[in-house]
Amino acid sequence: MNIGVFGTGMVGGTIGAKLISLGHNVMMGSREADNEKAVKWVAENGKNASQGTFADAAAFAEEFIFNCTSGMASLAVMEMAGKDNLTEKIIIDVSNPLDFTHGFPPTLSVCNDDSIGEQIQNTYPNAHVVKTLNTCNCLVMVNPSLVPGEHDVFVSGNNFSAKSKVTDILMNWFGWKNVIDLGDITTARGAEMMLPLWVRLYSAVGTPNFNFHIAR
Amino acid sequence: MNIGVFGTGMVGGTIGAKLISLGHNVMMGSREADNEKAVKWVAENGKNASQGTFADAAAFAEEFIFNCTSGMASLAVMEMAGKDNLTEKIIIDVSNPLDFTHGFPPTLSVCNDDSIGEQIQNTYPNAHVVKTLNTCNCLVMVNPSLVPGEHDVFVSGNNFSAKSKVTDILMNWFGWKNVIDLGDITTARGAEMMLPLWVRLYSAVGTPNFNFHIAR
Repeated sequence: MNIGVFGTGMVGGTIGAKLISLGHNVMMGSREADNEKAVKWVAENGKNASQGTFADAAAFAEEFIFNCTSGMASLAVMEMAGKDNLTEKIIIDVSNPLDFTHGFPPTLSVCNDDSIGEQIQNTYPNAHVVKTLNTCNCLVMVNPSLVPGEHDVFVSGNNFSAKSKVTDILMNWFGWKNVIDLGDITTARGAEMMLPLWVRLYSAVGTPNFNFHIAR
Repeated sequence: MNIGVFGTGMVGGTIGAKLISLGHNVMMGSREADNEKAVKWVAENGKNASQGTFADAAAFAEEFIFNCTSGMASLAVMEMAGKDNLTEKIIIDVSNPLDFTHGFPPTLSVCNDDSIGEQIQNTYPNAHVVKTLNTCNCLVMVNPSLVPGEHDVFVSGNNFSAKSKVTDILMNWFGWKNVIDLGDITTARGAEMMLPLWVRLYSAVGTPNFNFHIAR
């Protein structure tokens, strides 16, 4: 199917390449068409890869849009994508509001009583936002077996059918064994607030290829 | 040894009882001596249990004080304990700044660029604060085998020797197998910011007896 990916960074490139490898057509969206990184990504990913503006990628998407932009930019990105292009689409929000402008450790530009997932959902009530995958490295997102043993991915969202379709993608396309439904989109706060621990764990364990498991 | 426990709630009562069961003398501190819950706890825990004010319990402690008060109250508690009674002591900070005044879900009264652990350390530079155990239920804190499989507890603190002593308590007194040193006390932000996920996981998994494991 035709899928949109917002963002030309490591996350968008990795998820986009995985979707292409599964036989889908992927358009990578950025602020302006012919973004240098997007053009390079298309050249590397063959005839099912294309690129354009955020609006182009959103219009291209039959059902699913992966938001792989920085959380701090995500609302502006959605505005560029255009409300009409987002209506009835499922926005798989992988973003984190990491703010490195004050150095390391980063803070979150939004947290505690709000989240990027909620902000997108509240701004675009006719889209279905599902927050997921933001709590691990992008290589792990599309290849969870990189991390040995049992570990988990979370989903947050208001629309049960949308969460169910995203859970299907996570399990059957990306290979996740454990998907934990946290609840409605307000639970994205908890998932986004994992990041301050994540960045410190990255230093403590010495590899980005780790992930959270809820032992019980 | 003589150990102080601040707080008369579930967490203080559970940790205090565990310490007593290991043969230590424990004084439970509260705002005023003869607090009803503290008196009851002493009656239940035998001759090695005692109670008094926060200052009494801090003075009683030879080396270790467990801070099991609400994070929102912790700085006021430390002030009541008195700077001199805290000097050179190791404060094992189990608190979380959960704020339920606006209902469920709770927010954190401090987060993102600060934490309760840091606030106590910065206010009492001659004490050694080690943040730990705040990311699981109190029954799991002192009996990690309640949760099956591998799972982890975190420590954050500036003083290596204090962290090392606390790690010894966690492993040899409480039975923890995996202790992850996150780094200095600023890493307590990450540990405290796990709570918004924790409270939602409690609903999602249906038991408080779960814990985080860092698969890698």
